Amino acid sequence: SAWTEEFPGRVHFLGHISDRARLADLYANAVLRMWSDDELDRYRRHLEVMVKERTLDLQRINERLQREIGEREGKERELKETMERLRALSAGLQHAREEERRRIAMDVHDRLGQALTGLKINLSLLGRKVAGDAESVERLQSMSDLIDETIRAVREISSDLRPGVLDDLGLVAALDWQLKEFQDMAGINCSLHARLDDDSMDAGLRTALFRIAQEALTNVARHSGATHVEVRLAGDENYLLLEVMDNGRGIREEEIASRGSLGILGMKERAREFGGELEIRGGDGEGTVLAVKVPFNRAGARE
Amino acid sequence: SAWTEEFPGRVHFLGHISDRARLADLYANAVLRMWSDDELDRYRRHLEVMVKERTLDLQRINERLQREIGEREGKERELKETMERLRALSAGLQHAREEERRRIAMDVHDRLGQALTGLKINLSLLGRKVAGDAESVERLQSMSDLIDETIRAVREISSDLRPGVLDDLGLVAALDWQLKEFQDMAGINCSLHARLDDDSMDAGLRTALFRIAQEALTNVARHSGATHVEVRLAGDENYLLLEVMDNGRGIREEEIASRGSLGILGMKERAREFGGELEIRGGDGEGTVLAVKVPFNRAGARE
Repeated sequence: SAWTEEFPGRVHFLGHISDRARLADLYANAVLRMWSDDELDRYRRHLEVMVKERTLDLQRINERLQREIGEREGKERELKETMERLRALSAGLQHAREEERRRIAMDVHDRLGQALTGLKINLSLLGRKVAGDAESVERLQSMSDLIDETIRAVREISSDLRPGVLDDLGLVAALDWQLKEFQDMAGINCSLHARLDDDSMDAGLRTALFRIAQEALTNVARHSGATHVEVRLAGDENYLLLEVMDNGRGIREEEIASRGSLGILGMKERAREFGGELEIRGGDGEGTVLAVKVPFNRAGARE
Repeated sequence: SAWTEEFPGRVHFLGHISDRARLADLYANAVLRMWSDDELDRYRRHLEVMVKERTLDLQRINERLQREIGEREGKERELKETMERLRALSAGLQHAREEERRRIAMDVHDRLGQALTGLKINLSLLGRKVAGDAESVERLQSMSDLIDETIRAVREISSDLRPGVLDDLGLVAALDWQLKEFQDMAGINCSLHARLDDDSMDAGLRTALFRIAQEALTNVARHSGATHVEVRLAGDENYLLLEVMDNGRGIREEEIASRGSLGILGMKERAREFGGELEIRGGDGEGTVLAVKVPFNRAGARE
């Protein structure tokens, strides 16, 4: 029945040799096969063990991967949160400082300025009384000079803190004032090119750009060796561009990247707060350009 | 030869039945086995494929794990670097503000204070000249009052900025002054317990602790509803402890954790700069305790 059929493979020789020989062949074949079966068994068991091991390895490594991903995500979240809080702290510190400057500037200006003006009026009224006495007239004059000088000091101190012109006349006027002051102080020739109507500019952005320009000028005076600096302010309905360009020795990549450049980082954070970007370019001996580009939402700015 | 030996397993029945029957059995056995071999072959192939697949999976997932680890490490590095730079920026901003305060305080004090003192001397010299004229004497008196008032304003403005007593007499004296000012201004009863000789304290640490105390007092006035606040300052050769305790409504965990608590974050960063820790505890209705613990290296502090 079953064994009369044709079979492929290792037993096809059954029909050609004697029963005895066939038996011997079959037996030898079976033995060989048994051995080979043993090997195959071992191999199969080995394979089964390998599959199990690989599967376990896979499970373990998958778990590790999941843990790793979870840890990475947790770490990322944690670091991002801390970063956000630190960013907020930096911005908060800038604002607090700005607020303090404004408050002190007003305090100095109002409390001291008014008192000094009062003194000056009293002095001139007193002048009429002592008109006949040369020594008193001279003393009054020197007092008047002293008061004038003090009024100038009060103005300087409060302007250094917070130029009133920034709040009263806007960014362009404040930059113009600052560049004149800078030119006198640092002896570096300055020019301002402003093609911008900054009436509708957000007060915070105005302050940020003014402070960035001030910091940039400080850097020019400290590091550039420049003889000329040009400030450009331009904008359309989309962007606002502030550039501070000098003809100095240029800034090196390492200087820009260096950890110590807190001034640059501070400027970047100020720009970032208004969704802006700050870029510094400076070839060797070709001067330095600091450029701030801020998206300028006129609608938002008017709010 | 080989087939006369004893074999275990499926062919041990060879010696008991006729050759023909044996042959048939063997043949049937071989066929069955072949079928089973086919299955086993399939199974083995399947196992081999599985091992290959698992091995490939393992390789792939291992590569992914390596990439993931690399990415995680890169991200961590990047975020940590940014965090460090932002920390440095925050610290830098604090220092710059402190420096600015000191500079303005000195500017206001020196430039304006000296001028006002000059005016006062001139005024008293002038007084001798106009001794006979009642109106002039009165005018001089009102000028003198105005100058005194202005001198007070100058002192207040510069002390608000940077209490000279902090630099001249140290932290304990400055805290004492600040608590008296605070008591007058906020109407909250204050006491100071200082068991500390702060002569050798680092000037930066002194400033940091003073500013932390000021910020803590501001928080007490703003949020606590307290009627009493106690400031404690203690230290041994290892640690320095500043505590600000009030009897107000207490601070909630959410308030401490909240993103908006920039004041708290700022204080923490100030403490952190000197390797210190800042802790805020406050049960409901049990008041709030703010505690700063800073390692106090006397040797280092004296440098």
